[in-house]
Amino acid sequence: MKKVYTLFFSLMIGSVSAQNADSVMIRKIYNEILSNGKSYEWLRYLTKQVGPRLSGSAGAQKAVDWTKQLMEKQGFDRVFLQDVMVPHWVRGAKEEAFIRAGKQKTTIPIAALGGSVATDPKGIEAGVIEVKSFPELRAMSPDKVKGKIVFFNRPMDPTKINTFEAYGGAVEQRANGATEAAKLGAVGAIIRSMTNLHDDNPHVGGMRYATGVPLIPTAAISTNGADLLSKSLAENPNVTFYFKQNCETLPDAKSYNVVGEIKGSEKPDEIIVVGGHLDSWDLAEGAHDDGAGCVQSIEVLRIFKALGIKPKRTIRAVMFMNEENGLRGGIQYADLAKKANEKHIAAVESDNGGFTPRGFGIVGTPEQRAKVMPWKPLLAPYGLTEIGAGSGGADIGPMAQLGTVLFGFKPDSQRYFDYHHTTIDRFEAVSQRELELGAASMAALVYLLDQYGL
Amino acid sequence: MKKVYTLFFSLMIGSVSAQNADSVMIRKIYNEILSNGKSYEWLRYLTKQVGPRLSGSAGAQKAVDWTKQLMEKQGFDRVFLQDVMVPHWVRGAKEEAFIRAGKQKTTIPIAALGGSVATDPKGIEAGVIEVKSFPELRAMSPDKVKGKIVFFNRPMDPTKINTFEAYGGAVEQRANGATEAAKLGAVGAIIRSMTNLHDDNPHVGGMRYATGVPLIPTAAISTNGADLLSKSLAENPNVTFYFKQNCETLPDAKSYNVVGEIKGSEKPDEIIVVGGHLDSWDLAEGAHDDGAGCVQSIEVLRIFKALGIKPKRTIRAVMFMNEENGLRGGIQYADLAKKANEKHIAAVESDNGGFTPRGFGIVGTPEQRAKVMPWKPLLAPYGLTEIGAGSGGADIGPMAQLGTVLFGFKPDSQRYFDYHHTTIDRFEAVSQRELELGAASMAALVYLLDQYGL
Repeated sequence: MKKVYTLFFSLMIGSVSAQNADSVMIRKIYNEILSNGKSYEWLRYLTKQVGPRLSGSAGAQKAVDWTKQLMEKQGFDRVFLQDVMVPHWVRGAKEEAFIRAGKQKTTIPIAALGGSVATDPKGIEAGVIEVKSFPELRAMSPDKVKGKIVFFNRPMDPTKINTFEAYGGAVEQRANGATEAAKLGAVGAIIRSMTNLHDDNPHVGGMRYATGVPLIPTAAISTNGADLLSKSLAENPNVTFYFKQNCETLPDAKSYNVVGEIKGSEKPDEIIVVGGHLDSWDLAEGAHDDGAGCVQSIEVLRIFKALGIKPKRTIRAVMFMNEENGLRGGIQYADLAKKANEKHIAAVESDNGGFTPRGFGIVGTPEQRAKVMPWKPLLAPYGLTEIGAGSGGADIGPMAQLGTVLFGFKPDSQRYFDYHHTTIDRFEAVSQRELELGAASMAALVYLLDQYGL
Repeated sequence: MKKVYTLFFSLMIGSVSAQNADSVMIRKIYNEILSNGKSYEWLRYLTKQVGPRLSGSAGAQKAVDWTKQLMEKQGFDRVFLQDVMVPHWVRGAKEEAFIRAGKQKTTIPIAALGGSVATDPKGIEAGVIEVKSFPELRAMSPDKVKGKIVFFNRPMDPTKINTFEAYGGAVEQRANGATEAAKLGAVGAIIRSMTNLHDDNPHVGGMRYATGVPLIPTAAISTNGADLLSKSLAENPNVTFYFKQNCETLPDAKSYNVVGEIKGSEKPDEIIVVGGHLDSWDLAEGAHDDGAGCVQSIEVLRIFKALGIKPKRTIRAVMFMNEENGLRGGIQYADLAKKANEKHIAAVESDNGGFTPRGFGIVGTPEQRAKVMPWKPLLAPYGLTEIGAGSGGADIGPMAQLGTVLFGFKPDSQRYFDYHHTTIDRFEAVSQRELELGAASMAALVYLLDQYGL
């Protein structure tokens, strides 16, 4: 009996002292990042010097070159590129749009959605059918819709506390609105911007056409513009809407994922990925989406070196290309990992903005999630209290097929859609402390994943 | 036995259905505020049309008049003023300051601290003693300090996750630095601004002189200015610092707390206060500090009326005057309540900014705190997870002597000291959703306090 007790206590003490050591190391990670963090200045460069970086653009190539150099300068064990062919859509000249009511023309802010075709070079003008949902549209007779512009005006639900839930409830309009409208003979589709704000910024984003359905031009309209259009239609159903856009899809372009790596000292074949996506929309500096995730991921590797932590497993920072309009980088990364028979035990993505950390969503089996639960007391002092089943991230999504456990970094969601896919998603919208706390949170999780595996 | 079971189950069912009804009502509160909230537009008016409102100023009087009218328009049962005499300090002409190193003069952003005396009309120039703490200063011989300007340069500790803790660790320099310096014969005291940012904004705030110690002028210096001054001193200990300020303390002025009330239907003599402070620093629009708390508090009462909730107890929104440099409004409110023998069961203050809600700090006995704990599952879906012993608020602090249980609304703390007591604490720094979520959180707590007492 005494022997059993001794074993029990020594195990218990072993576990307690391991927790203490982890607690001390996590404290060091936060201290270093909050005192000497680099992510904020890196983000300044990425947003201000590199700037917008839509897939296939010169900006995207500049971002690839700069992040590669940056990681090389950090002295990581290996920095390399992965080739990936990406869609190459260009906006062309700035869009024009107005509401015409009798003799009065009111200019309205719009922006073509990524992937959309252009209008006729002179633009198009037509009557407007306002709808709030696909069922409402589908119930209409094609006669009513034919030759018209369909205006999808369902707002994000402001009563959803998590704004991503509200986004999820509205974004089908942007993704599929043009197709749904074209099925009934519409000549264009105008989509209310995905934001809870009432503002003048069109919030762009990706859309897709279905095969066999005419490709009609589609654009985001600012929420103030949408409210005005809705009001104008209520007053006079015969108002017309004019818009002109000049966008074009060019042949696929060659681009790259950028990968930095610190080799594991004990189990180098077990890989942990931490990443974000390097591309942004063409109108945005891409500060929250997703410059933040990129610089935070590089900071995670930097902190291992700065604190002299020699990881047992191999840690990779991955800057994925083309999340916004194709996800080609994420798909390519998983494909290459599969072909090379690499063992990715976990992947952590930050793509919900550089805001105050709240926790991590986990995609994995209940047993895998259960292995994370003992870490909760180590993370709670840093505000990381929402840890459980949830979403991972778009770029790491394809790694699920490899059996990789996915972690989505979960910051406070309240301001994300104020900036999302607009010109105001710029460096100034990011708080240094919030960004750094996010980097430290990711580093703490990666540290624990490296220590204990899954 | 059967009877006991029946009683047990009916109690349990009763409690479950009460929780359901509460849950439904709290959901309604959030829905109404997030869909039709008024606090953001009220804040726009208070910051942009009323503007800065330091105690004793015309702005403060305008704020009193406007909030009184606003509450009257809401149709509250009673709106009234409480007279209170307040300190009346004025800044005068904008301050000037520079570092002189040989022939080179470098202009530095400073701002007189509230309550400070002026310099000589021509300004003062002297050598500089840099210290990080009072013990460090006290260990110096008066010979070294006499005739000099003491420069208090201990930064807020960036590794504290809660920024209020970091503030608490540094703010004694601002409050008492001038006195400590004067004790050793210094002619001025310059205080590093209380912020984690590296920026060019002097962050002002209150200070006090001790009796029997010479009154020397004192000012806040921006953190960039402080870093430059420190660097200059390291390079050349003989650099001098010049500053000129023109502030003045006038005789106390008459001002007011503004109170709006909805009368309780069952226990009108039991009062629940919800409030913030109406005054701000003279350089700031006072958006986060504390316009947010004021408009949120009025919104709490509006929501009771909008949803047709007839409170059992009397609910008061109190706009306290003079938190920033005297706390006279808070002291007066508690004094008047005591004299009138009013029974204040609870007071809720919002004075930590209009950021995403995290919870409430409670000042009360363990038994009183225990009564709040069953409400946690009702509040957790809204991100209110930090509920427990903590701080109340400066204005409601004096009510502790009445046996009132104090609740401090606890929003995310990361950005508060970016804006605190500066010109950039303006309307644009506030997120509508974060502000509204705060108002809804306070309304939910007040609803529960009204339903169940303490």
